[in-house]
This record gives sequence, structure tokens and C-alpha cells, in this order.
Amino acid sequence: MNAEIVAVGTELLLGQIVDTNSAEISQALAELGINVYYHSSVGDNSIRLAAVLAQALTRSDVVIVTGGLGPTEDDITKEALAGVTGRALKMHPAAKRHVESFFAASGRTMTENNLRQAMVPEGGEILDNPRGTAPGIYLKVGGKHVFCVPGVPTEMRTMLRESVMPRLAALRGSGEIVSKTLRFYGIGESALETEVKDLLKGDNPTVAPYAGLGEARLRVTARAESAEAARRMMEPVVEEIVRRVGAYIYGYDDDSLESVTGRKLAERGMTLAVAESCTGGLVAHRITNVPGSSAYFTRGWVVYSNEAKVSELGIDPKLIEAHGAVSEEVAKAMALGALERSGASVAVATTGIAGPGGGTPEKPVGLVWFAVAVAGGEVRAHSRRFRGSREDIKWRSASEAINLVRTVL
Amino acid sequence: MNAEIVAVGTELLLGQIVDTNSAEISQALAELGINVYYHSSVGDNSIRLAAVLAQALTRSDVVIVTGGLGPTEDDITKEALAGVTGRALKMHPAAKRHVESFFAASGRTMTENNLRQAMVPEGGEILDNPRGTAPGIYLKVGGKHVFCVPGVPTEMRTMLRESVMPRLAALRGSGEIVSKTLRFYGIGESALETEVKDLLKGDNPTVAPYAGLGEARLRVTARAESAEAARRMMEPVVEEIVRRVGAYIYGYDDDSLESVTGRKLAERGMTLAVAESCTGGLVAHRITNVPGSSAYFTRGWVVYSNEAKVSELGIDPKLIEAHGAVSEEVAKAMALGALERSGASVAVATTGIAGPGGGTPEKPVGLVWFAVAVAGGEVRAHSRRFRGSREDIKWRSASEAINLVRTVL
Repeated sequence: MNAEIVAVGTELLLGQIVDTNSAEISQALAELGINVYYHSSVGDNSIRLAAVLAQALTRSDVVIVTGGLGPTEDDITKEALAGVTGRALKMHPAAKRHVESFFAASGRTMTENNLRQAMVPEGGEILDNPRGTAPGIYLKVGGKHVFCVPGVPTEMRTMLRESVMPRLAALRGSGEIVSKTLRFYGIGESALETEVKDLLKGDNPTVAPYAGLGEARLRVTARAESAEAARRMMEPVVEEIVRRVGAYIYGYDDDSLESVTGRKLAERGMTLAVAESCTGGLVAHRITNVPGSSAYFTRGWVVYSNEAKVSELGIDPKLIEAHGAVSEEVAKAMALGALERSGASVAVATTGIAGPGGGTPEKPVGLVWFAVAVAGGEVRAHSRRFRGSREDIKWRSASEAINLVRTVL
Repeated sequence: MNAEIVAVGTELLLGQIVDTNSAEISQALAELGINVYYHSSVGDNSIRLAAVLAQALTRSDVVIVTGGLGPTEDDITKEALAGVTGRALKMHPAAKRHVESFFAASGRTMTENNLRQAMVPEGGEILDNPRGTAPGIYLKVGGKHVFCVPGVPTEMRTMLRESVMPRLAALRGSGEIVSKTLRFYGIGESALETEVKDLLKGDNPTVAPYAGLGEARLRVTARAESAEAARRMMEPVVEEIVRRVGAYIYGYDDDSLESVTGRKLAERGMTLAVAESCTGGLVAHRITNVPGSSAYFTRGWVVYSNEAKVSELGIDPKLIEAHGAVSEEVAKAMALGALERSGASVAVATTGIAGPGGGTPEKPVGLVWFAVAVAGGEVRAHSRRFRGSREDIKWRSASEAINLVRTVL
């Protein structure tokens, strides 16, 4: 079974928005073991849209169309689909009720053109849209399957997971799919791929690599008659990956470095303080992106100037003079100062050169010192040299600092 | 002249990466006044890639292919293009020199397969790639124009600006293009569009809206025989926009709220300190994303716990008890405490409920208080109620805080 994705909207062709839907739908289809052969984007133009839909129905078993379901005159996905498939466009009673109740619930008054969203090509079924006005559509055309989903990512995502994927799983034949994402820190994407190269060739389970800034992921997916059987197929592959590169795994599925670190702190009843120079607040920002982080994160300092390092964290000005602000000694003093002033269980510090200016031959752009201090324990420091833009260096440095807290716990 | 963009790579169809190149190339073509009618993504499969290229050459005047120029066996863009156009693939001497010199400069040893990157379809010209190994290609096929550019965004971007756009501008006919982006804060995307609706219909100059989280943009683009003439056409439209909604404009082109605010601080020789609760370090992070921000940003506090608010900023615990941490009184005390402790010229403070938990009927999720204090001046506070996810609320709150500093200067 092969599939293609058609994204509809002139704003895509003008580059006003980036098409993230096609990638997200593709990931979902890959999980289901359905091959995606083409993505197409086309504008709100009935002739070109009809041509793209006709071609898709010729060459693919499953066509997922995203966008163009709204109430405006530019929203012509259903008209084009009706035209291409020779179906009449009719008012769908359940869709009409959905549109009306959506307006009633939000307290807005419904204009007549909003009922366009309740029109469905004959023979089509509606797909529930719990997050928006326009229902989706499923239409079987000969042996082909067309799904129309909204273009708004949050609406698309919910409909994809709740309505499209279950139908596709049923169409694909009996069986269940399970998958697990393994998250890595401290190993590069290509080094990781080299370690598991043979596993990437598997058909069932599949192992797919995904890259991120300063981290890497592998997703293992297995299909079988039951979820239990799929899990039994998946687990040996996960175990083999863990056996080879488990030292770099920091978490699974929706984990992030900051959520894993936060969970560890919360479990141990410990608290965290941060002292940042070159990361400029990003460590604290990422730590506090985790809901509930106020339970363990007490405070942070962004001591950007040397004077701030002295007055806020009690660092000896002579230390800065002797070693420079970007040094092992100052990183350690920052962590110890933060620990002492905050009374937290753990404190982490960063000091480095984020660039693009400020580098020297001895202390180049991208050089960052990290230190972690634990109450009643030791203070440890190490340095890293990162490459990339100022924002890349800040991001990678923040990841390293958060990972340092994770590993010290 | 109409164009289409073909993105090549199986990783796109697996959803492992999002195709940002097509949007970026589309923006560049829109600036040039070239209509993009289709985006297609196709995998590293020679038959499907050839079919997509053949179709593109049938229906479009300009075809821009991104990806598949690298040294591995999966990189087959040039083979497919040669096959579709009936050209032989030959070693290009200048391309060979580029590949060899790139390896020599980086000190890596070149394996034989890297010379595949120097093969060019007969009649093709190479496009310089200052950021990577694989040169791009320009090939004229009948009356059609094919550009092959790398898939790596940084390499693609440089080649697009330096080699592709000048050639397209020449192909499009004589004339120059100038454009200006106007950046807005404090007005919603749809409210902005309503204000300038009639201007969005223009053909030359064009006015195109772009949306961002908590800000909106309009890009005005004009074409004329000379840059001077294009500028004369553009300016009345820019002036008309300024006349209608100029109160919301915070900057132009590559400005950001933080860069504009930073520039104002630097120009006045002023310094900034920040005291954050609900934004958790994001205000400091964004301020310090601007290169050179150490000239005016001295320090920040992330006083997440009430105890931190008391001990770091000297806030009276009774004030927190009486009004709650999310209150006008505490926001003002935070800004004043930060101003006093830091000796900065300006201090800004945020305190609110980022959610998803912690809301009450009186103080719901998304309620945020802001205060700004100026040395020798007054302290001002106001509140906003934001919607969205925890990260959305943090982002919008940080924008509001940075904008508050901008407007007080």
C-alpha cells in the first residue's frame, strides 16, 4: 500500500508558511508501515488542484489531502475532489450539526458561508474535528482511499491520530503497531547510525533515525497480529540498541533532557539552582518549560557581566582577573556560589564564548566551561568546544549543562 | 514565468526532516515576481524522481531541484536529470577543482566517490558552493531552466542568493527588485490584514503577510527598471501602511524585538537587568541571543520560588502574602529590586501563571503581570492574559516584557 500527501494552500507556494503537516503525516504513515512516495503542494487554484488530485488517485492507493476545508472562497479542496471523482457535493446532516454546535459552544454567530464546511462529496464519510469547525472527509474512490484533513496543524494532528490512523490500520489489514523512540545525548547522528547500520535495514521491526540539534533519536516500530506480539518483536531490537549504544540513551518517547532531569530531581526530593553566563538564561528557560518544574527549580542567575558574577554569586574578582571569566576556576566558583546562596541540592554553571565576537586563539568562540556542585559533595568541571551559530552554541551548551545535572544525580 | 520546486530525499517522505527549503526558495521567487505553482517531494528512487522531473519540465518554465547532489549512492539527482534530458553526465573540470580544493582546505582525505560531485550533465554550468563540497548546476533544456541546489539548508541558502537569484532576475528580464519587511507587535495577524486588505491585492508592488508567534510581518516588494525606480514605487506603499498601522511597527527587515530594544539601549548608553518568574529565563535568553548584548545586558534573576523573590530581590514576604506572587504589587517590587540591586538603567519584571496547572478563577492560566522601572523615574505595571500552551504563554510574555522595555526607552 503506497500513499501520497497533498498540501493545499497558496501561502505554502509563497513561502509564507513551512509545510510541517506533510512531515508529520509521513511519520504517522511510516509507523503504520505505509510507504509515502510523493508530497505535493499546490495553491488554491481549482484547475491545478484537480490535476494534482487526479494524478494522486492514478498513482497512489492512499491520498491524504491537508488544507482547504475552511469556510472562505479560497477553500476549494472538496469542490476539486468532487469534480475529479464525479461526485455531487451535498450538505451532510451530521457535519452541519458539528459546525452549528461548534459555533454555539464558542458563543460566536455563524455566518451562512460557514455551512460550506458541512458539504461532503456523495458517498463520503465525515471525520470528527474536536479542535475546529471543519470536519474531515474519508472518501473511497474505486480501490483508492482519500482522506481530507484540515491544514491547521493542531486540528490536523488530532484528526490524524484519532480518525485517519485507525482507518488506515484497518485498511492495511489486521495487526497492531507498536513503536518506541530512543533518545540519545553525547553521540553524533552519523556515529549513531554507524553503530546500528545493520538494524536500519530491517523491514519489521523498522529502525529509523531522526536528528536534532545536539541530540539524536532512533524509532523502533514493529507490526504484528496483536500489540503484545508486536512488542515481543520490538523488544529484542530495542535491547540490541541498548546493548550497543545504551550509554548514550537519556530517555524514551516524549522525554527531553530537561524533563528527565526534572523527574530525577523530583523523585529524589532535590532542588536545583542555575548560574548562567554564556547560555544567557536558556538553561533556566528549558528547565522551566517542563510543567511542574516549580517543584524543584528554585532560582537562576544570569550573571552576564563580571561585576554581576562578583556581586550576585560572591566570586572573588581576583579569580576572574587571574583566570578570566571563561575558565574552570570561575565555572566552579559560580556553581559553588549558586549552591550556597540558594540552599539548593544541586547547582550548575556555564561560562563561555557564544560568539560571533569575543574569541581569542586561547579561548575561541564556542569554548564553554561547565561546573556542577552538589550539597555536601564535590564540585566538578569540564569544558567543551561547540561549533555553529551563537544560538546553536547556546543551545548545545544548555543541553550539556542540563545533561551534567542528569548524570550527577 | 512560472516555477516549481522539487525536493529530493527519502528522509522527507519518512517525515524525518521537515522541508524548509521549498518555503525559503518560494519566498525568494516571490520576491522576484516569479509564480510558484507546485512543490513536490520525492525519494531517492530513480524512476519516481525521473517522472517528477519530466512532469516539472513539461508544466513549468523554471524547475529548482534541491537535494541529492552529495557523494553517496543515494544521491541521484544529476543521473535522473541527465536521463530525463538525454544529456551525458561528464566530469566538469572546474567542479573537480572545487571538490578537490574543498577537501584540501578542510584537511580531510578525499575518497574516489566524492568526485561524483563533480559530474555535470552535458551543457550544464556549475553554481558555486562556498559552504559545501557539491557544486550546484544550471541547465537549460529547450526553453526551460533547471537549477540543482544542495539539500543542506545553509549551502542551499547561499547558492540561492548568490547564484540562482541573479540568474533568475536576468532571465525574468531587465529590472530590479527591492523589498522591505515591516514588523509589527501588538496587533493580531487578521486585524492587520483587515487594515491593509486592499493593499494585499496589488501586483506591483506586492504586499504579503507573514505570521509569527505574537508578532506579524508585511513584506512590500516592487519591481522596476532600476533599484531606484523600484524603491520609488515601494515607498508610497510603505508610507501608506505606516500611516494606517504605524503605531504597531517595531522594526524592519531582520530586526527582532530584542535587537531593536538592544540597539536603543546601546545608543543611549543604558543598561538592562531582568527579573523573571513565569518566563523562567526566556527574556534573558532572547536578549542575549543578540550578538553584542553584553554591552547593555548586565544580569538577570529567575526568581521562581517565593523564597528566591525575597532573598534575591529583597521583596517583602508580607507583600507576597497579601497580594500573591502574581500581582501588580509583586511585579513592581521585582522590577524595583532588580533596578536597585543591579544598578542598571532599566529593569523589567514578569510574574504570571504559565500553566497548564496553577490557575484559579481569579488568577487564570495565562495571566501575567509586567513591570518596568527606570533609574530616577517611575515604575509602571500592567497585566495581560495570554492563551496557548505553556511555551506559547512564556514566549508571548517574554515578547511583551521586551516590548515594554522598548516602549519605555
